[in-house]
This record gives sequence, C-alpha cells and structure tokens, in this order.
Amino acid sequence: MTACSVDFEPVGRRGGCQKKESLLACARQLGVGISSICNGKGICHSCKVQVLSGTVSKPTPSELETFSPQELKAGWRLACQTYPRSNVKVHVPAESMTTPQRLQVEGQEVTVSPQASVRAYPLKLAIPSLEAPQADADNLLQTLNQKHKLNCNKVDIGALRLLSNQLRSWKWQCQAAVRNYQVIALLPPKSHPLGLAIDLGTTKIAGYLMNLNDGKTLAAKGVMNPQISHGEDIISRINGAVHSAEEQAQIQKLAAEAISQLGADLCAEVGANIEEIVEAVVVGNTAMHHLLLGLPVRQLALAPFIPAVSRALDIKARNLGLDFAPGAYVHLLPNLAGFVGADHVAMLLATGVGQKKGPIVALDIGTNTEVSLIHEGKIVTTSCASGPAFEGGHIKYGMRAAEGAIERLQITGDKIQYQTIGEAPAVGICGSGILDALAQLYLAKAVDEGGRLNADHPRVRTYQKKREFILVSKEERNGQPAITITQKDIRELQLAKGAIRSGIQALMEASGVSEKEIKQVIIAGAFGTYINVASAIEIGMLPSLPLARFLQAGNAAGMGAKLALISLKQRAQARALTSRVRYIELASAPDFEQTFMQASYLGQYRIINGRREKIN
Amino acid sequence: MTACSVDFEPVGRRGGCQKKESLLACARQLGVGISSICNGKGICHSCKVQVLSGTVSKPTPSELETFSPQELKAGWRLACQTYPRSNVKVHVPAESMTTPQRLQVEGQEVTVSPQASVRAYPLKLAIPSLEAPQADADNLLQTLNQKHKLNCNKVDIGALRLLSNQLRSWKWQCQAAVRNYQVIALLPPKSHPLGLAIDLGTTKIAGYLMNLNDGKTLAAKGVMNPQISHGEDIISRINGAVHSAEEQAQIQKLAAEAISQLGADLCAEVGANIEEIVEAVVVGNTAMHHLLLGLPVRQLALAPFIPAVSRALDIKARNLGLDFAPGAYVHLLPNLAGFVGADHVAMLLATGVGQKKGPIVALDIGTNTEVSLIHEGKIVTTSCASGPAFEGGHIKYGMRAAEGAIERLQITGDKIQYQTIGEAPAVGICGSGILDALAQLYLAKAVDEGGRLNADHPRVRTYQKKREFILVSKEERNGQPAITITQKDIRELQLAKGAIRSGIQALMEASGVSEKEIKQVIIAGAFGTYINVASAIEIGMLPSLPLARFLQAGNAAGMGAKLALISLKQRAQARALTSRVRYIELASAPDFEQTFMQASYLGQYRIINGRREKIN
Repeated sequence: MTACSVDFEPVGRRGGCQKKESLLACARQLGVGISSICNGKGICHSCKVQVLSGTVSKPTPSELETFSPQELKAGWRLACQTYPRSNVKVHVPAESMTTPQRLQVEGQEVTVSPQASVRAYPLKLAIPSLEAPQADADNLLQTLNQKHKLNCNKVDIGALRLLSNQLRSWKWQCQAAVRNYQVIALLPPKSHPLGLAIDLGTTKIAGYLMNLNDGKTLAAKGVMNPQISHGEDIISRINGAVHSAEEQAQIQKLAAEAISQLGADLCAEVGANIEEIVEAVVVGNTAMHHLLLGLPVRQLALAPFIPAVSRALDIKARNLGLDFAPGAYVHLLPNLAGFVGADHVAMLLATGVGQKKGPIVALDIGTNTEVSLIHEGKIVTTSCASGPAFEGGHIKYGMRAAEGAIERLQITGDKIQYQTIGEAPAVGICGSGILDALAQLYLAKAVDEGGRLNADHPRVRTYQKKREFILVSKEERNGQPAITITQKDIRELQLAKGAIRSGIQALMEASGVSEKEIKQVIIAGAFGTYINVASAIEIGMLPSLPLARFLQAGNAAGMGAKLALISLKQRAQARALTSRVRYIELASAPDFEQTFMQASYLGQYRIINGRREKIN
Repeated sequence: MTACSVDFEPVGRRGGCQKKESLLACARQLGVGISSICNGKGICHSCKVQVLSGTVSKPTPSELETFSPQELKAGWRLACQTYPRSNVKVHVPAESMTTPQRLQVEGQEVTVSPQASVRAYPLKLAIPSLEAPQADADNLLQTLNQKHKLNCNKVDIGALRLLSNQLRSWKWQCQAAVRNYQVIALLPPKSHPLGLAIDLGTTKIAGYLMNLNDGKTLAAKGVMNPQISHGEDIISRINGAVHSAEEQAQIQKLAAEAISQLGADLCAEVGANIEEIVEAVVVGNTAMHHLLLGLPVRQLALAPFIPAVSRALDIKARNLGLDFAPGAYVHLLPNLAGFVGADHVAMLLATGVGQKKGPIVALDIGTNTEVSLIHEGKIVTTSCASGPAFEGGHIKYGMRAAEGAIERLQITGDKIQYQTIGEAPAVGICGSGILDALAQLYLAKAVDEGGRLNADHPRVRTYQKKREFILVSKEERNGQPAITITQKDIRELQLAKGAIRSGIQALMEASGVSEKEIKQVIIAGAFGTYINVASAIEIGMLPSLPLARFLQAGNAAGMGAKLALISLKQRAQARALTSRVRYIELASAPDFEQTFMQASYLGQYRIINGRREKIN
C-alpha cells in the first residue's frame, strides 16, 4: 500500500512510497541511484538529500551529528534515515548520486533562447519550362530571397550537387538551410534542422543531438574514443601523429568516423537522417582539437607549446570527413593555449562565470587539469600536468569508472566499507574511490602528511618488499589477489593532487586573491562530478572552504558545446570570454618548484610564499 | 647575303631576307607558317598579308586581280608575289596562317590592368615563446592585419594544416595569399601568386599560367580532354554520368586530374610548384562545367534543359579534386543556359562586344554552336545543334586538325589543289578543309544548291552504289583508297551549316536586325579561327557581308578566362553581361522548321519569313 508519493529532483522521477520505507529504499524502488556506502546504516553519510517540501520523520542521532542546525533547517537529511509522512519533493545533489545516474542527469535542458547559426526556410519553387528555363540554384536563391527577404548569394557545392534531384523528387517544395548568406543544404519539406554538440574527450566522446529550431536536446549518447588504439593519453597520440603523416591521418579518421557514427546513431534514435545535421559544435582539449582537424601537433608538444590556431573556427564538416548535411559546418570554440582547450572555454561558458565578479575558481580535473580564476572581470588560467592517477592510470588496481570499480570508500579503524559501481564484486578502484581512499588513509593515519604508509596500521603490509594498504583482502575476494593501495600509488596521487593544488595556488597569487576570499569552486568533468569534495579538501587538493562553496558541474564542457550550438550569442560570449583570459605558464610562475613540492603534502593547509601553513 | 630585314607581326618573328626571296619564302625561313595552297604560284590567294611599313615590289597581275585598289593601297599583298626592297614590317592575319602557328598566336597578352581576387602580402612574424605563446594562425592574422591594414579573420583549413611547419621552415617569413578576408595559403617569401585560366573544351583543354601580380601569361599549353574515353561528344558523357554515380565520379576525376596535371606542367615550365596556384578560372560549355563540378546532368539533357546552376561560382579547388594551393578557389563564370556555357560568356567578355552598340553577331562554332546578337545594349543568344561535321565527325574522311589533314582546298575545273597540315601526304580532311571543299564543290557546280552531287562532273563517281567526289585519287595516294566527299557527307554538312545559319536568322528576327545592318561578325573557337570565311559565306553558312566585317577571334573563350582570372572588374563585367542576355530556344522560334530547311540550301541568299531569297 502506498502511503504517499515522493518526487525526486532533478532526475524527475516520481512514485509511491510504502509505509516504513526510507527515502533511500523508495529511491531504489524507483530506479533513482542514491549513493550509500554503509548500505542504509546511517554511518557513511553519502546519501545526503534535501527535502524541499512535505513532511518527513524527525532527524535521527546520526543525522543530528552529520548536519548543522542550519542545514537541517534547510531540509538536509540522510535518505536512509528519513521516512516520508506526506507527499514530498526531494532534491538529490549530484554528489549523492551513483555514477550512472549522474551521467543521466547531466543531459539537462539548456535554457538560453535559441538563435542558431543555421535557419531553415520553407520554399515552394516555380517549375522551370522551355519558356522560363531558369537554373535550379538560381531559381532557389531567387525564391528564397524574395519570399523571406534575404540576401543569400551562394549555394554550397555539396548542396548544389544534390539540389536538382532533391527539388524534383520533393516536387519543388523544400526547406533551405541557410547559414550566413549561404544555402548549405536542402531539407525535406517537413523536418527540423538538426545540430550536434560534441565533447571530444581523450577517452570518451559525448554527443547531443539538438533541434536547432527550439534548442531542445533530442537525444544524447556517449562512446569511447577509438583513438585509444593510438595511445590512451594525449602524448602517445601526438607522438603517433608526429611519427608519420599516415598515422596522423588514421588518428584523424578514427575521431571523425566515431563522431559521424555517433551522429548517425543519435539521428536514428529520433527517426532522422544524419544528412539533416546542418551544424555541429565540437569542444575538446587543444590536442584533440588539432588531431580532429588534422593540424600539426609537433609544435604543440614541444616548448613553448604553440597551437596551430587558437581562435574559433568554422570548418566545412566534409573537410573533416564528417557525413553531415552537404554544406554543414563544424564550429570549434577557441582554445586558450597548448594545454587549455576549447573544452575549458565551453565549461566557463556553461557555468556563466564570465559574468560573475568572483573570485571563482573553475577547474576541469583530468590527466591535464585546467584551472581558471575569475576575479573582477579578469580571468587567469593555467594548466597542470596532473597525470592519469585520478583516471586510474599508473595506479596498481586503478580502473575506469566501470562495473565493479570501488567508487566510494570509508575507513573506520581497521574496518573498510565501500561501494562499487553496479554493486558488483570489487575488481578495482576508480578515480573517486582512489581520492576517497587517500583521504580516508590520511584520516585513519595509515599515511602521514608526507604520504608515507604507516607500517603499524593493521591493514598495511609489506608485499614483495613494498608497502601497501589492503582495501579488499584476498579472503574477501574468495582467493583472488587483494586489492591494495601501494606506496607508489600514493606517490602518484601526491603528484597529481600537488599539481592541481599548485595550479590553483599560482592563479591565486597572480590575481592577488587569498584562499578564504574564494566565493565558489566549480568542478567540472566526469571525475570532478563523481568525487567526494570533502575527501579532496581533506587531502589538500582543493582549498579548505565550506562545502557549500563547491559546485560539481557535471559535463559542463558538453553543456557549453550545446549552448554554442544553439546560440550565436553564446559563441560571441565564448569569444569575448577568451579574449579576457590571461594564460599563465606554471613553469614560469615564481617559486613554482617550491610550491609544487609543498602542495604535494597531504592535509589541509595554506601555501604562502612557497611555504605550507597548516590550517587544522 | 641579307638584303633587308622583315618583321612579321603579330607573331613577333624578325629576320634577314635574301635577295630574290619572296615574303612567303622569307617567312618559311623564319618559321612563320603562312598558308599557301598553290605553293607560291600566286593563284590560291591564301597567303594574304598586309605590308605595314617599308618598300616592296610592285603588285603582280595576280595581285591586281585579287585585291581592290583600296586594299592594295592599305598594303594588302600576296606573300608569294611580294619581294621586299627595304626593311619591312608585315602583318600576317590569322586566316593566312597555318593551323599550328595560329595556335601560338592566340596566347597574346591580356591588356586589362590586373586586379586579381588573390593578393600576396609579405610578412615577418614574431617568434612565439613561453612568455608570449600565441598560436601560429592568430600570430599570422594579427601581424597581417596590423602591417597591411586588413581585416582578415579566417585561415583556410588546408592552409592551416601547413602553416605551422611552413612558418618554422621559412624562419617566420612568408607571404600570405589573401582572398576576400581569408588567408588561403602561405607562399614562400620570394614567389608570385600564380593563377591558372582553363578553357575546358569537350575535346581539348587549354591552360594558361599567369602571374597574378602583373597579369602576365607565364606559360600556355593545350592537352586532350581525357573524358574522351567516356564518349567523344557531350551527350555520350552525359549518358555515362546519368548511368551511374561511379561513372559520373570517374568522368569528374578525369577532367580534374587533367587540369591538375596541366597546372603542374605549366608550373614546372617556369620553375614553380603547383601549390603556388592560388586561383583558377575555368570556362567551358554547361555540360563540361557540370561534369567538372560533379553536378547532376540528367535534367540538363532533357527538355526543358535546366542547368543545376547558372550564376558564377567560387568553389574551393580541393572540392573538385584539384591540387592547387591549399585554400585556392576555382572561379566559374556564369553560364547562360543548358546549351550556352560560360565559354560563350568568356568569348563575349574577351571580344568586348558588351560595350559595343552593334549589331554584332558573335559565334563559337562547334558540335554545338552558340550565337549571340548584340544590338543596342541587348544581347540575344541561342544555341544550334550544328553537329560534329565541322570537327570531322560523321564525315567519311573527316579527321581532326592533325598532320596530313587537308586544311585548305581549291578546285579549278577538274583540278584540285590542296594544302595539308605539316605539308604531309594527305590522309583525310579537317574542318576548315571540309568547309572549303563544300564551297569549292558548289562553285565548281559539282553540287547544286540542294546539295546533290552532279554525276556529270569528271571527279564525281558512283562507288558502292553511292555518289562521291574524289578529292585525292587512288593513284595520287599510291594505291591507297581515294579521299572523297560523299553525298552523305554533304548532307551532314548541310545540316550543320543550316543549323548555324538558322540560329543567326532567329536572332536577327528576334532583334529586328536585317543582315546588311550587321556591323561585325566575330567567329571564335578553333574551327572558327581556321576556316576560310569566304568559303563559309559561299555556302551560305555565314551572312553575305564584306569580308572586312568578319573577325576571327581565336580562342576567345581562353582569353576571357584569362581576363576573369586577373581582374575582378572583368568578372563583374561578365556577370553584368550575362544579366543582359535573353536566351532563345530555337525550337520555339516562329517558323523554325521552315527556316532550318531553307538554311540548309547552299549558296548566298537571305531568308525572309522562312523563305530563301537569292542574293547573287
């Protein structure tokens, strides 16, 4: 029997809740993936939600301990401890959701009013005759300009090649897709001009199919980047491209084919044809951008790391080997530097930080971490070589966020509780789990500030002459090797977190902003969305600020691509934003070596003039 | 011993002349190919020249008979009858030159002041550094705009792909080739931007390499059109293209490869690289235009014969598979109708008829003959299906203008004198020879007005039950079969000449212009340049006007392409010209059937209201 209904936002799932069913249980019934490391015992605090309306049970002791009175007043609760007493509306913050669920949420609707680069105009043409034997394209342009009061003067050669047959098979009715005085395609009389926004990541490619008329997202999909066959990281791929023109061409082709396929799949989902995609926006890091465009990358990989081009580009899709509408263009947002790509610009655009006073820190965490500090109209940006550790690379049991990956972890004394993706038996540990592990090891004093494993901790052992911390024992894994965090893993993580922290530090110094002045820290990207911010603060990767000042923005780069796809104003904003950016090369920042060394220490502290100053 | 020197114009050949050497003999010594059917006997009158300055021998009786007193006063002489008495300057009109020589002459310099679509700007860029890590393309555009006060905002993707390496290998010095705010290529610090003008004929492709800075022609070359493997005439090729997309692609590729090769050969001649060609202009008939562009041709070949496009186009060379500079464009002049192509527009442009009051008739004779009549600012144009007879097609012994082809011919009683190309033994008869033959047969009363061979003529025989006229007998050919003109050949020629004449007639009627009002008849194209105009008048193919009103313009289409290549003003003129043209479909002209039938009669007459009226 259903007692009352629960409405989970922002996933937009609603359903009945049985009596004696907690919000967590109800969420699971409805397929809303709320994170729970302790599996409903009220001790891991990972299932935080905010009750927006309706009546619920009183806070339990565990909740009173977890939340401040202000937070409780604002409706913050642990989903496993809370029972609805009426119909309720519950907000599930991104950090409380399981990985797959978060991926779903990021496909939120864009809210700007659409003003796309391409518009489709319906037309009915006069049928030519011996007496009036006007050429098809001239007939089209004349009718278009007369009927819609335009000044189009060009038909793309690709469109031109199809036009005569299209007009005849559509009985002289069509829509002309127009971009900047140019007819780039004819569309069937009844169809939408489609756009494709692409976030071209080193590992994954996310695609969003949009209706350019109303700016709505019609379908979204993510695929692996097949360039992985030429190396998992950017440097391997750059080396491949530099090695031979053939390999560069192959690398280019792989990305182009994957994007075409993604476009075709998304179109198939909505019953459209890929040739109805009249515009695409692609964002990615500068190397991915160059490799997709077939631009030289040798100079990008060597100091002084010069991109072939930084400004925004409009390139015919066919020049990249993409099978869209015949004259479709791909718009590429500007990049900022060799190591700060258009994906970062897209993120800045999507989070709207350009219009804010600041100080705001916005960062994309990845193998390369891009950070911007926005303060009083100025933007300083840098790039830190944070390495692949947070993506599971160079970590003994590291893995991507896939089924069986430990994604959340808690250590209490010598006890460990963890949650895996898909609740499958643990097979490794992904980025967010690795970050939790380091924070929990530090809190449990299993590692010291310097990152050294404490041999006295009951879960620390010496194995093959090397120290490691046992996360899941051989016994727990039914005889399979234990999943551990090694001393070497910790060193890798220290380098990663040190790089990120010293990047933030350099920007603060360049802007004259102190840590406590920072009003907001925006963390974008897959890894940034899944991490436990508290853990990141604990180890000193992120500044020690109240949790409320952090915003995990999801795939903000993809969102920025969508904005740029449906709105020319947003493109102009991206250009304006870019022109305000000052890029700082970390290696040339004062005291950088010193700062970096200090920043690799664990714990919460401030770095002043290259020296650490403990906070707590 | 050299008595005096002779300067032959417009070929620009000068040399000493021996005593007792005629102008003809002197010309041959110097390699100036003056036509002579009777081989210096003063009876064929084909070696007409004009003495511009200096003293020469007195006119012989043969010359007194050939020229009017006015002509003699103006210096007109027969080269074989004239002996220099001082240094002389002699003008050799095109019609008096042998075929190969005429081909050389047509490469005359264009005289408009160059104002090309592409300009090259020399640049020296700042070398980027860690402190100033500006992207290469941004660096280039910024320097270009600052130094040359431009507003370029785009670098072509092809140019972009080469730019980083070019800048580094040229030590940051280069020339930026700019077209319409777009950098389309980088050129080495010291080089010229090159242009390629192409006259894309069904049979031959003529190419002219030009320096876009000064508008000078650097090299010229003609090659066969390899599309011939898909049919000698346009209709076969259209059928091939309609048959399958693969065949259309092959036909396209053949033309593109031939043009690329021609460009490469011309560049090699002047020590340049094909990638220095930054712009091309291509003119050709509408079918050749469509086949080169990969445009559909099905609708072009069926009534109402609609081109996919008529207006002028600018298309990236790479989209046609042409290997020019990375971002080079091909400009295509507008066409006028399905059967009146941009080559006709180019001819009108080159001959400057657009600015003249008229009435002027301008025609390109070929398998398809395009005719325009310019009168008081208006241009009416038509196209006549004149067939391949004048190119040697469908004629028993017809052949192209190659070695051994009879190109000039005279009949006196039962005697025949002829001249072959290269003075080689006769193997067949080419267009100009065929035309001469028909005129001479008519004058010798070997055919009557209706085109019927007269069995009483000593050279007319019945062979395999069919009448034919023996041009070169079996004996004269050492036992090889006689070269003849058959009754069927004559019928083919009548259709050809009838089509041309009735086209001219339809235009005169549409413009309200009578034959005698026509101030000038311009005859362009290979065939038109080589023919004996008197013969064409004799048979009634051309209107019966004084010879002085005829101008044989050579490859005026190629000249028009050159003009459009080096001057944007000329392109604008071509567009303006095109907008003034009214196209007349012959089939829908009043009395057309009647006119055509009458026009196929031989002899000089006027056609009034579809009726023939004999003149002489």
